[in-house]
Amino acid sequence: MNHAILLISCLDRKGITAAVTGFVAQNSGNIIHADQHIDEQSNTFFMRLEWSLEGFTIQRERISQAFEPIAQKFQMTWQLHFTDDRPRAAIFVSKHLHCLYDLLYRYRSGQLACEIPLMISNHPGAGGLARDFKIKFHEFAVLKENKSQQEKKQMEILKQERIDFIILARYHQILTPAFVGEYRNRIINIHHSFLPAFVGKNPYLQAYQKGVKVIGATSHYVTEVLDEGPMIEQDTVRISHRDSLEDLMRKGEDLEKIVLSRAVRWHLEKKILCYANKTVVFD
Amino acid sequence: MNHAILLISCLDRKGITAAVTGFVAQNSGNIIHADQHIDEQSNTFFMRLEWSLEGFTIQRERISQAFEPIAQKFQMTWQLHFTDDRPRAAIFVSKHLHCLYDLLYRYRSGQLACEIPLMISNHPGAGGLARDFKIKFHEFAVLKENKSQQEKKQMEILKQERIDFIILARYHQILTPAFVGEYRNRIINIHHSFLPAFVGKNPYLQAYQKGVKVIGATSHYVTEVLDEGPMIEQDTVRISHRDSLEDLMRKGEDLEKIVLSRAVRWHLEKKILCYANKTVVFD
Amino acid sequence: MNHAILLISCLDRKGITAAVTGFVAQNSGNIIHADQHIDEQSNTFFMRLEWSLEGFTIQRERISQAFEPIAQKFQMTWQLHFTDDRPRAAIFVSKHLHCLYDLLYRYRSGQLACEIPLMISNHPGAGGLARDFKIKFHEFAVLKENKSQQEKKQMEILKQERIDFIILARYHQILTPAFVGEYRNRIINIHHSFLPAFVGKNPYLQAYQKGVKVIGATSHYVTEVLDEGPMIEQDTVRISHRDSLEDLMRKGEDLEKIVLSRAVRWHLEKKILCYANKTVVFD
Amino acid sequence: MNHAILLISCLDRKGITAAVTGFVAQNSGNIIHADQHIDEQSNTFFMRLEWSLEGFTIQRERISQAFEPIAQKFQMTWQLHFTDDRPRAAIFVSKHLHCLYDLLYRYRSGQLACEIPLMISNHPGAGGLARDFKIKFHEFAVLKENKSQQEKKQMEILKQERIDFIILARYHQILTPAFVGEYRNRIINIHHSFLPAFVGKNPYLQAYQKGVKVIGATSHYVTEVLDEGPMIEQDTVRISHRDSLEDLMRKGEDLEKIVLSRAVRWHLEKKILCYANKTVVFD
Repeated sequence: MNHAILLISCLDRKGITAAVTGFVAQNSGNIIHADQHIDEQSNTFFMRLEWSLEGFTIQRERISQAFEPIAQKFQMTWQLHFTDDRPRAAIFVSKHLHCLYDLLYRYRSGQLACEIPLMISNHPGAGGLARDFKIKFHEFAVLKENKSQQEKKQMEILKQERIDFIILARYHQILTPAFVGEYRNRIINIHHSFLPAFVGKNPYLQAYQKGVKVIGATSHYVTEVLDEGPMIEQDTVRISHRDSLEDLMRKGEDLEKIVLSRAVRWHLEKKILCYANKTVVFD
Repeated sequence: MNHAILLISCLDRKGITAAVTGFVAQNSGNIIHADQHIDEQSNTFFMRLEWSLEGFTIQRERISQAFEPIAQKFQMTWQLHFTDDRPRAAIFVSKHLHCLYDLLYRYRSGQLACEIPLMISNHPGAGGLARDFKIKFHEFAVLKENKSQQEKKQMEILKQERIDFIILARYHQILTPAFVGEYRNRIINIHHSFLPAFVGKNPYLQAYQKGVKVIGATSHYVTEVLDEGPMIEQDTVRISHRDSLEDLMRKGEDLEKIVLSRAVRWHLEKKILCYANKTVVFD
Repeated sequence: MNHAILLISCLDRKGITAAVTGFVAQNSGNIIHADQHIDEQSNTFFMRLEWSLEGFTIQRERISQAFEPIAQKFQMTWQLHFTDDRPRAAIFVSKHLHCLYDLLYRYRSGQLACEIPLMISNHPGAGGLARDFKIKFHEFAVLKENKSQQEKKQMEILKQERIDFIILARYHQILTPAFVGEYRNRIINIHHSFLPAFVGKNPYLQAYQKGVKVIGATSHYVTEVLDEGPMIEQDTVRISHRDSLEDLMRKGEDLEKIVLSRAVRWHLEKKILCYANKTVVFD
Repeated sequence: MNHAILLISCLDRKGITAAVTGFVAQNSGNIIHADQHIDEQSNTFFMRLEWSLEGFTIQRERISQAFEPIAQKFQMTWQLHFTDDRPRAAIFVSKHLHCLYDLLYRYRSGQLACEIPLMISNHPGAGGLARDFKIKFHEFAVLKENKSQQEKKQMEILKQERIDFIILARYHQILTPAFVGEYRNRIINIHHSFLPAFVGKNPYLQAYQKGVKVIGATSHYVTEVLDEGPMIEQDTVRISHRDSLEDLMRKGEDLEKIVLSRAVRWHLEKKILCYANKTVVFD
């Protein structure tokens, strides 16, 4: 059964929840999930409302228009989604393919409610896998000198394929601000450390040399500042002096797969709201 | 600032959230937290609503009466609480005092929004600690033959001290159904295993002999069936072949303290709803 | 570089470690790892010793013979392995393929030091995947009436393919004692619960109905008693009332993959010793 | 029963383990625990050997002398300890007393094999607790101007009380290099973040503002560089957008207590070896 999802943020004041849930009730909608959060420091109200369209008296394409007066009254930033939307994702990948494999398995087994028509890489290695899954594969050798040019070509393809969001599944290239700006809060990256520790290159080597007793992985939306975008999910695993650098990488891979896939799923289920370079995740 | 908290459960149908949040909004209340959950199997609706009484146009003592028509319309089971209530707790304890120490530290440091006027034990060991914290201490030697009698005396004292709920902080006596019935969903126990594994006596020994690689602790409301009441919280910790039975007990103690204190805090914050021998915890 | 690995167990007494490490030193071996454990209850000594064969003065094929006098002196149960051995594994699978996918990815990426020449299933679903990985695939429809017969045919194929150990990657058939007896401590199963809780069928449903707050997965060697063999590894993940049965299954799948793959890796690295229906894992 | 413990580190070469365990065996000692580790990058050998003195033919006070030739042969750095030693600890504390409470409970219940004759603080708050536990309490108001002077007085008291090691149980003063140098690898600190993230002041506030999804705590030996000494233990706990700064602090407190107490216990059990600003923990 198809559901509608409203994601809302605005300055907190009295009556918001009543107005929004009243809108659904007056039009015979049945609320399935309602989550709200107030950030006390900034006095901001956040809400995720999901209701069944069965018996809802407003036609799907007219809901936005009908909701507009409420949104204006409370000066909301808002989005309306439907659970039968299937966003189109592109996966960017380099040489490490564990996250890619993991995503493709989840995709094939129906865990990810999206289409994945496109893969982009700066290495040829993932080409065979793309073929197996019948996904278009484009290789772009990226150098300092040609990065802007290559990104322009990539963006053309992304538009051609009507890509809604991008998953960086261990893509080892830093995107330019121009690229990032086109896909604000729509590029999900996995960083193989417990951010903000170990930003940048070789985080497992950094962790190994530092002698930490726990390692982590972080999924986040990409912003112009490297490894500094709003975090979506993190997880950690214990290590000891017995673990070599290779052990850290192996243990970390298992974390990366889980932490990235959670972020992608929440993104697809419209459970994430961004603010102040942080996220609200209505899990 | 004082808040009101409504805990609601009823059969799910359209319009419940709108009716409840509308009640708050129409009387100028500002919602601080609103959580809801629908159990799809039983089609049951659960809600926890917390709003500020600042500017709320209904007087505190008349809120129940004002809400009654909504409750009746949806045939709700409901409770109304206020955050300035300070429930009165009794702690029951035997020989193992780690959970008791932990609770008393949290109590003294202001983490637990309750009064603890009373401790009951079947051993004298905790008496000194009770004195230090200026808590009344009653020792009841409990044998099979005198259990009912002793419980009757205990219940008298509990009533005299106007006790609202009971914490079994490793109290090694099984309560009779008569006692449990008096304090339905108001007795919190800590069991030193990952239930339903290792019910009953010596769960650490059972775990040790079984060769498990992870041990756990479980806090739950007490029912007539031993270690079978609705679970509130569980947590686990890794062990290995290197851990002796004593190590399991030591590692487990740290779990028990945390798992019990979380349950007590959630109970005090009115975050727990029971149904079908399970709990909804609106954390 | 090739290493030798000794796995030893015997009654504990003075001088065992000195004798074993002396044997390596006197023959110019360099110890890479030495782990030992004493089970105090049974006074049993366990050891895993790994040393480099570079410069070792005894030829590989004569090491056993040379070590025999020490083994006899202490009445040891012992095994000798070499790190360049590549055991041959068969994977048994039914309909749920997440563990299979995971193992095959790890196999392809070089994480598992074994050969996987054979897959056996009671369903046709995994056949395509077997083809992709160039692994022989045999389907055996198993019914109560024909189980013994089918197992006999399976054992023939296992022998033909010189299979050293078997991975039950969510194989939903109970093996007969005859079969288990042939592969004592050489069949690794993944059970989708935190054993000993939720033995048998539908553990996620059992967990859901019980209202647990944490779910788990357990890998173990298979014995004649269902879900009761020596546990190799367990891990857990938090759930809440918000998680549906489907969520439990999805979260559990991620656990199962990790818990099974750890067990397989430790088995391949000769890090596991069994005793008293438990395991010592020298990780 | 009393045991001897040898902690050894040296350049790795053939025959070390055989020589050391041979020394014990030839003198009729029974090894209880033997752990070793080789750091491949620096080719360093580490060992912890624990054996029973029952029937050991060398008198306790002559063991060092007897072992010296082996130590010299392999140019070892080594320490000899006995399990009936009870080191004398001083606890330094400021205003946050949760770790202090936790340590004192463990001390009283016999979990910590040490004496705690002394507490030092820059605040009067812990004085009553010291009195309850019959521990000497010295208050030192510490300002920039008088820090060196105050530390000198503290060191006098530490010597007078024959203090072996120091626990900084949330002591909010940076020690001078002179002080640290006197107690190299003998001062254990708890830092309330997942180091190296959030060094310095207010790590919970830093974590809150950063929007991390997991927080941590780290225990480490103190060196001249703030929060940069060799890490002994770390652990983490999940948080979400629902957690306020106060929630972070509360959840963090529970971590801090556990992470600090593990470090203290391992230190007392002589399970920690330091090298390259990292630790080997033979747990």
